[in-house]
Amino acid sequence: MLRRIFPFLTWSRHYTRADLSNDLIAAAVVTIMLIPQGMAYAMLAGLPPQAGLYGAMLPLLLYAAFGTSRALAVGPVAVVALMTAAAAGAVAQTGTEGYHLAALWLALLSGGMMLALGLFRLGFVANFLSHPVISGFITAAGILIAASQLRHILGADVSGKTLPHLVPSLLSNLGQTSIPTVVLSAVVLGFLFWSRAGLARLLQGLGFSAPLAKLLGKTALLVAVVTSTFVVWIFGLDSRGVAVLGDVPRGLPAFGLPAFDAGLIQMLLAPAAMIAIVGYVESISIAQTLAAKKRQSVDPDRELVALGLANLGAGVSNAMPVTGGLSRSIVNYDAGAATPAAGAMTAISIAMALMVLTPFMYFLPRATLAAIIIVAVLSLLDFRALPRIWAYSRADGAAMAATMLFTVLLGVEQGLIAGVGLSLALFLYRTSRPHMAVLGQVPGTEHFRNIDRHDVVTDPQVFSIRVDESLYFPNARALEDRVVQALSDRPALRHVVLQCAAVNYIDASALESLESVNERLHTAGVQFHLSEVKGPVMDRLARSNFLRELTGQIFLTQFDAMIALAPGLTSACRNRDRCETRRASGH
Amino acid sequence: MLRRIFPFLTWSRHYTRADLSNDLIAAAVVTIMLIPQGMAYAMLAGLPPQAGLYGAMLPLLLYAAFGTSRALAVGPVAVVALMTAAAAGAVAQTGTEGYHLAALWLALLSGGMMLALGLFRLGFVANFLSHPVISGFITAAGILIAASQLRHILGADVSGKTLPHLVPSLLSNLGQTSIPTVVLSAVVLGFLFWSRAGLARLLQGLGFSAPLAKLLGKTALLVAVVTSTFVVWIFGLDSRGVAVLGDVPRGLPAFGLPAFDAGLIQMLLAPAAMIAIVGYVESISIAQTLAAKKRQSVDPDRELVALGLANLGAGVSNAMPVTGGLSRSIVNYDAGAATPAAGAMTAISIAMALMVLTPFMYFLPRATLAAIIIVAVLSLLDFRALPRIWAYSRADGAAMAATMLFTVLLGVEQGLIAGVGLSLALFLYRTSRPHMAVLGQVPGTEHFRNIDRHDVVTDPQVFSIRVDESLYFPNARALEDRVVQALSDRPALRHVVLQCAAVNYIDASALESLESVNERLHTAGVQFHLSEVKGPVMDRLARSNFLRELTGQIFLTQFDAMIALAPGLTSACRNRDRCETRRASGH
Repeated sequence: MLRRIFPFLTWSRHYTRADLSNDLIAAAVVTIMLIPQGMAYAMLAGLPPQAGLYGAMLPLLLYAAFGTSRALAVGPVAVVALMTAAAAGAVAQTGTEGYHLAALWLALLSGGMMLALGLFRLGFVANFLSHPVISGFITAAGILIAASQLRHILGADVSGKTLPHLVPSLLSNLGQTSIPTVVLSAVVLGFLFWSRAGLARLLQGLGFSAPLAKLLGKTALLVAVVTSTFVVWIFGLDSRGVAVLGDVPRGLPAFGLPAFDAGLIQMLLAPAAMIAIVGYVESISIAQTLAAKKRQSVDPDRELVALGLANLGAGVSNAMPVTGGLSRSIVNYDAGAATPAAGAMTAISIAMALMVLTPFMYFLPRATLAAIIIVAVLSLLDFRALPRIWAYSRADGAAMAATMLFTVLLGVEQGLIAGVGLSLALFLYRTSRPHMAVLGQVPGTEHFRNIDRHDVVTDPQVFSIRVDESLYFPNARALEDRVVQALSDRPALRHVVLQCAAVNYIDASALESLESVNERLHTAGVQFHLSEVKGPVMDRLARSNFLRELTGQIFLTQFDAMIALAPGLTSACRNRDRCETRRASGH
Repeated sequence: MLRRIFPFLTWSRHYTRADLSNDLIAAAVVTIMLIPQGMAYAMLAGLPPQAGLYGAMLPLLLYAAFGTSRALAVGPVAVVALMTAAAAGAVAQTGTEGYHLAALWLALLSGGMMLALGLFRLGFVANFLSHPVISGFITAAGILIAASQLRHILGADVSGKTLPHLVPSLLSNLGQTSIPTVVLSAVVLGFLFWSRAGLARLLQGLGFSAPLAKLLGKTALLVAVVTSTFVVWIFGLDSRGVAVLGDVPRGLPAFGLPAFDAGLIQMLLAPAAMIAIVGYVESISIAQTLAAKKRQSVDPDRELVALGLANLGAGVSNAMPVTGGLSRSIVNYDAGAATPAAGAMTAISIAMALMVLTPFMYFLPRATLAAIIIVAVLSLLDFRALPRIWAYSRADGAAMAATMLFTVLLGVEQGLIAGVGLSLALFLYRTSRPHMAVLGQVPGTEHFRNIDRHDVVTDPQVFSIRVDESLYFPNARALEDRVVQALSDRPALRHVVLQCAAVNYIDASALESLESVNERLHTAGVQFHLSEVKGPVMDRLARSNFLRELTGQIFLTQFDAMIALAPGLTSACRNRDRCETRRASGH
């Protein structure tokens, strides 16, 4: 029981010296990435840099204690930082007390929601965010994130949360561009792009072993940060228009609940729910992908609990909303992280950095952090997904396009709502119009196929229909209409057979429709039969009056039905020529 | 083409003398019911009595020209009148100009919506009102309607649109009860209840033929109206506290568009949509039931067009929203209405009544109209439906109970929204958790069944799973989780087979999940196979990269898959004893 609640009780019992050394290496590499990324994502969220570093401490310890993934690296991530900025920016001015308070409450609320979803095993709600909607959302969010960093890259006052605000702002403020900032940005961006593949290759060329070169390649962020900070300090670029980070408070965060404000909390409920769902979906797919590589598994509901506690931890330690991040998790996995202890060690390293390194961050140029953000999010952009998904399914493509458009034009929350709303509407639309096939017998066999697609024989007295969908209220009437239509089209009709092989469920509306079909057919002197009804469906029907009122029979197979209802047809069909004749007369 | 638009061009070509006489008789009987009912439902809607009579003129002519049902009797009906009262009462005080204006705009807006839904063939949206929700709504509306008539039955000032308002009002105003009104109400109610079966029986006893006695039995409403009016006039009861109808304007209505008010229209959009959907659903089910009895059919989309035009007609003739009514349609059918011309003749009779009879309506007691309403709606109440539906399906029962409770406690619109919302939520919940069965082979056969339910054999290297639902975003991850779980549970696993016989559709999210399953299994050295994939599903998969990336094969049948992947098992199974051994070792 205790072990179910605290997964670390399981893995810590077999913790070996090799595990320790693997976890230490992984923690070191992740820390080197996390210090600049944490500060960069805090900047993206409109928060002071330390909020990102605090988000890499207590949340990581909590996740290490409760999480079930061995490789997931929790902390500030770009998309959640953007959503935090959008939500906090809607209730307060960036940089104000109220803004920071909103960010803390977003962490607490989304954490509380994740925790509740996990405890009540409601993680399935995340499934309503379909893959195309997530994919479109992340690409659109990536565009917004990259665009929002133009102000730091150019050193100009470009602002706005959506493209219709960002673009005019960019055009009208382009004149303010600071040349030293642009040059610095260009150098850092160029270095970071090159380093993604080039640095490891260079190190390998210098004689390092391939795995070590790959690990050292991950220090590119650190190299960029240290070098650019040094350059700004040496050449006094901060007095020539290059914006620097300034004072970062030294030491650990103050712990405690943020000020309570009922009105604020009410306004943040909806965005917090979206942050909870998006954060969870991002995190769980990373965790599952990495776990599968080692034939391990993660428990979605316990992941929700762990992420929820991590966010609650962020909320009480002056941090920002967190979740599992893709790039750091892959690095963590590649570096050999053996257990969640790697995350705890990362948290301790970040704490030490906060106590020792913050004075050296004064001259860190904001342009470097912006470049780090841009390089990180460009890997999120996937423009080929839209045509691929559109080609596979128009409905999914439309939902994805709507998500992207609404996100870049109106904002992240509007984009998510539009995407989820449209995908649900299209889903309901599809189930409301099920595929139905009128069946005929493939001559000489026991098989029955769609009369529109196959060369089959039918009997004018028997109308056999197959519905390729469960029968429930959105489509109940469709079957009713189809059968009533057949009744008025076919004067010779004596029997209607509903083939139920693809029907997994019949709800009360569909049951009433079937009763009504039975009643209407009865009034017109026609019998109603079912064939190939599944066990669970039959169990449920037995609880109603339907089976007693049914004018016809329940046949085990469609062939049994035809033997009983159209014996002439089935015997005739052993002779193919006569079948053809019957068929012709049957139309 | 013209005939598709004007169905009367079809039936009028073969119109016989017999048709004419049948239609005339039906029109006469329906008119006799419609005059008191029209005035009564106008009173229920909070409108002057002539609004109900006007609603039985132009709308009937328009329906006769465009409708496809030969028996449907259009006009004011109780549930729509209640919804009109609720919507108009929310924007204006009963009896004011603004109130009547709101009722006219409700007719125009709901008519326009029906017309648009019909022209764009969007009638399927009505399917989202599930049968249990409609049934619960109509019973709850019946309770509210009956309760709202207590003021007229008692002659006391009882008001309120929901039970929490009606009940206290009833208790506090019970002292005002007018004894002559209560006595009159009791006599009329008693007579109407008795007449439902007793009058026809009495007439038959007096020597009338059975069909004629049944027809004359329908005059009970007229008898009640005429007699009670006469009694009030003779005994001067109007001066003793019995409320009478007063002046009803003589002659035809003024035609024309009501005053335009953008703010009012915006507030009425949502209730008008609900009136359109509820009105359509009530009407189409009556029309289809009556049509099926004669092996005729009605076209749902053209019915929407005809009902839409009827309501637009109501809106421009000072009437009230209309739809097809159950009781009058049955009378119309029983009386032998042969064509929609019966409706047109009814409209003409009503027009004549308006020109001649209105002066005689002055002393018509409101209590009589209230009694007519109560007797009509009591037949709508169906309290046995809830336990029956609950026994069949908890989800449907819950949606029905929610609809009833919200309707009587909070109002008609809230009830409908709660019912539709809950049924959609439960539907989505169910599809998000599909039934999945791990399959084993029934020894000695080609059949595969759930290992939890049947005595089957399995191979530890092969994991076969069947999903009893189409694969789409709400449930895509469920399959992924299940397979990933199997991967970590079964160290010997070499093959996973997904049996797709019940999968009618795979959307882009599910496709990505399958790709991810394929990828994860591949990483772990396990092959992924599909079996029994349906044609349309296969066509769609062929448009993606999935079939190229699939590590395993697509098998026509599950048996083919097992022959290829576990040949030892399938051959061993011809000997039942060895199968048992395999089975034991496979667990």
